Amino acid sequence: MNTPTLRLGVAGLGRAFSLMLPTFLNDSRVQLVAASDPRPEARARFERDFAAPTYSDVDALVANPDVQVVYIASPHQLHAEHTRIAAAHGKHVLVEKPMALSLDECDSMIQACKASGVTLLIGHCHSFDTPYLRTHELISGGEFGSVRMVHALNYTDYLFRPRRPEELSTQDGGGAVFSQAAHQVDIVRMLVGARPVRLRSALGRWNTSRPTEGAYSALLWFASGAYASLNYSGYAHFDSDEWMDWVGEMGNPKSAQDYGAARKKLAAIASPAAEATLKAAGTYGGSAYARAAAQTAFAEPSHQHFGSLIVSCDHADLRPMPNGILIYGDTGREFRALPAPVIPRFEVIDELHGAIYNDRPCLHDGAWAKATLEICLAMLKSDDHAEDVLLNNQV
Amino acid sequence: MNTPTLRLGVAGLGRAFSLMLPTFLNDSRVQLVAASDPRPEARARFERDFAAPTYSDVDALVANPDVQVVYIASPHQLHAEHTRIAAAHGKHVLVEKPMALSLDECDSMIQACKASGVTLLIGHCHSFDTPYLRTHELISGGEFGSVRMVHALNYTDYLFRPRRPEELSTQDGGGAVFSQAAHQVDIVRMLVGARPVRLRSALGRWNTSRPTEGAYSALLWFASGAYASLNYSGYAHFDSDEWMDWVGEMGNPKSAQDYGAARKKLAAIASPAAEATLKAAGTYGGSAYARAAAQTAFAEPSHQHFGSLIVSCDHADLRPMPNGILIYGDTGREFRALPAPVIPRFEVIDELHGAIYNDRPCLHDGAWAKATLEICLAMLKSDDHAEDVLLNNQV
Ligand SMILES: NC(=O)c1ccc[n+]([C@@H]2O[C@H](COP(=O)([O-])OP(=O)(O)OC[C@H]3O[C@@H](n4cnc5c(N)ncnc54)[C@H](O)[C@@H]3O)[C@@H](O)[C@H]2O)c1
Ligand SMILES: NC(=O)c1ccc[n+]([C@@H]2O[C@H](COP(=O)([O-])OP(=O)(O)OC[C@H]3O[C@@H](n4cnc5c(N)ncnc54)[C@H](O)[C@@H]3O)[C@@H](O)[C@H]2O)c1
Repeated sequence: MNTPTLRLGVAGLGRAFSLMLPTFLNDSRVQLVAASDPRPEARARFERDFAAPTYSDVDALVANPDVQVVYIASPHQLHAEHTRIAAAHGKHVLVEKPMALSLDECDSMIQACKASGVTLLIGHCHSFDTPYLRTHELISGGEFGSVRMVHALNYTDYLFRPRRPEELSTQDGGGAVFSQAAHQVDIVRMLVGARPVRLRSALGRWNTSRPTEGAYSALLWFASGAYASLNYSGYAHFDSDEWMDWVGEMGNPKSAQDYGAARKKLAAIASPAAEATLKAAGTYGGSAYARAAAQTAFAEPSHQHFGSLIVSCDHADLRPMPNGILIYGDTGREFRALPAPVIPRFEVIDELHGAIYNDRPCLHDGAWAKATLEICLAMLKSDDHAEDVLLNNQV
Repeated sequence: MNTPTLRLGVAGLGRAFSLMLPTFLNDSRVQLVAASDPRPEARARFERDFAAPTYSDVDALVANPDVQVVYIASPHQLHAEHTRIAAAHGKHVLVEKPMALSLDECDSMIQACKASGVTLLIGHCHSFDTPYLRTHELISGGEFGSVRMVHALNYTDYLFRPRRPEELSTQDGGGAVFSQAAHQVDIVRMLVGARPVRLRSALGRWNTSRPTEGAYSALLWFASGAYASLNYSGYAHFDSDEWMDWVGEMGNPKSAQDYGAARKKLAAIASPAAEATLKAAGTYGGSAYARAAAQTAFAEPSHQHFGSLIVSCDHADLRPMPNGILIYGDTGREFRALPAPVIPRFEVIDELHGAIYNDRPCLHDGAWAKATLEICLAMLKSDDHAEDVLLNNQV
């Protein structure tokens, strides 16, 4: 029995694409058949690497009849338009998180895909990571009773990685909420398994040379009575991977020698334009792009993750970890090891493939991701208005 | 030069007293001269141990002219009355946290002590622990810039330790907020060093056989623009001492074999009355009271603490730990070791002694502790009313 392949056209050959590349290269269900990007060096490299056509704009990409699915990894603000263009041409869509920047945009994307009868999947997002999916299954099994409370915390160097100017401006889609809360909220929603009803947040915005929010804390209440405490800092001092067995977000082992690397690198950069150039140089097709990691077989021993999570149920606290799930039960503590991932982020391809070839419903569909975006928008609004925000678009 | 001693009379020979006993025994500035408790077995033991008089009620205790300071370690609901009685007899007062159960009670205590010209100190509280005091000094030194954000988390077996009935009823002063938030709020206030202005909270109250809140999360905003995320669970699965080098609240090394001990012990208890009896049996004078720990010289190698704390400043994240302070700076990570404590909780005696003999202002005075209580009360109210509570009694 031959598994049918997904013929992917890529819109946006930047950092998100380079992070998905090990998946595309190692998962035999995926074939990269075309790409579009305004950056000539990225296009040149894609043509060399895959002997496939490239285009400077998305309209040409979606017109290519070989393209069956468009992977939209362009900047946030283009997700909605690119999705509509792809759907109008009858292409399935895999769009990066966050789905878009407004609920109206989400509606237009859902509508366009529905009208064309194509699949709309939002990912990669860390809620696809196997330890979270398995924790969700454990909880659904009922063994531990109801979820009562969740605590999530992730401290990273997010704010100090090289950025495009709009990534440092919240009103243009920049900042920790759109980029990072999108992961954390998605994971927490999945694990609690109930409808979120209201949110209160505090944003941290204290570095004037990186003038967007780099940190947040939020309380999120669910219709079940459960609540979650979400905590994020991208201000790069304490690294919470210390609490994740020193495994990084990408499943990579972390070295103490790398302390402060992002800040140090950034300190040497003169201007926002130079910073954007640096970001591009470090990504696919760029002069400083490390070919090795992406092209060779995947070698990370651990699952990807998005920081520390403690899910408190009646009869246990569960902690999804890079190599398994820690279960702190009523009478004993236990570690349920998970086999190491063979292909990173294969879970995204599982869901996409299942939806397109087996009509399997997606968890991460448009309505799901729109609900996550509503919570991200509520985080911005709650801090601004200094009050709770009620949620009306939850599933 | 002879250091003058503090002649202490104890009101309440229960668990709090037994936790302070190593301090009283090992700090030569303290002399135990009398005590009162309705429990005859506790009185008998005190008389044996200290060859000092005891009384069944506090009025008789404060009438004893040998008593210079009354250490009030009776249940919360008696703190205000016992403080007023002590002050009326011209005795200095050291009162356990929480100061009282209402702001009016706090006012009456402050007023009574002021009218008599006696010192009013609230403690022990974990904000006295040396690693927090030193972190506060480091921050005040200005080396790291402003405090922007604090994250506090403590997961314990609080709710499953043996309790008196009122300790499981919030309206009678029970629950995690009065007993535990009192510590966490105090520490966070001290470290932020700015005036708290508003609070939003969520309470966890999901164990019907322990019908008080056993968990909370709260956002606390400060006039400086800083905010804090406070998180507590007393539901006893995950133990956050895992993040504190496996050192327990009392500075004790923790053993993995003790997992689930509190829950297991409690499961064998038949009724609330039996539980209260068990609590008393385990405390001073009780049949199951372990003499050894309290009577011998102090042997813990580490400082006491109240869980994980991350203080984010402009140029560093600081983590007070049981043996020092972790400093995650802009360019490097550093551990500033602290000498092991020679006497546990000597910091309380330092402050009390300094106030009484050297007229030194107390940090933990009535106005300070009233402000902490206001925040605890706000936690209860915010969850109940589902909105922010503004704070008006902060210092
Ligand atoms: N899931 C993840 O782990 C992850 C990681 C990083 C980024 N992302 C998401 O991916 C998206 C892109 O972010 P990034 O960090 O890769 O940014 P990036 O700047 O590295 O990449 C964006 C790419 O899109 C290209 N582009 C710009 N306009 C385009 C257009 N009109 N058509 C086609 N391509 C265009 C740019 O030239 C660039 O190569 C964002 O939505 C981000 O949130 C997800
Ligand atoms: N700082 C800490 O680490 C800490 C730890 C435990 C308790 N506490 C505080 O100490 C106080 C007491 O709590 P506990 O856990 O010790 O309770 P407990 O029940 O163990 O002890 C209370 C004692 O007070 C006695 N008592 C009751 N009525 C009295 C009266 N009218 N006069 C004199 N004594 C009386 C009881 O018989 C008992 O011996 C509480 O406010 C609590 O928050 C502080």
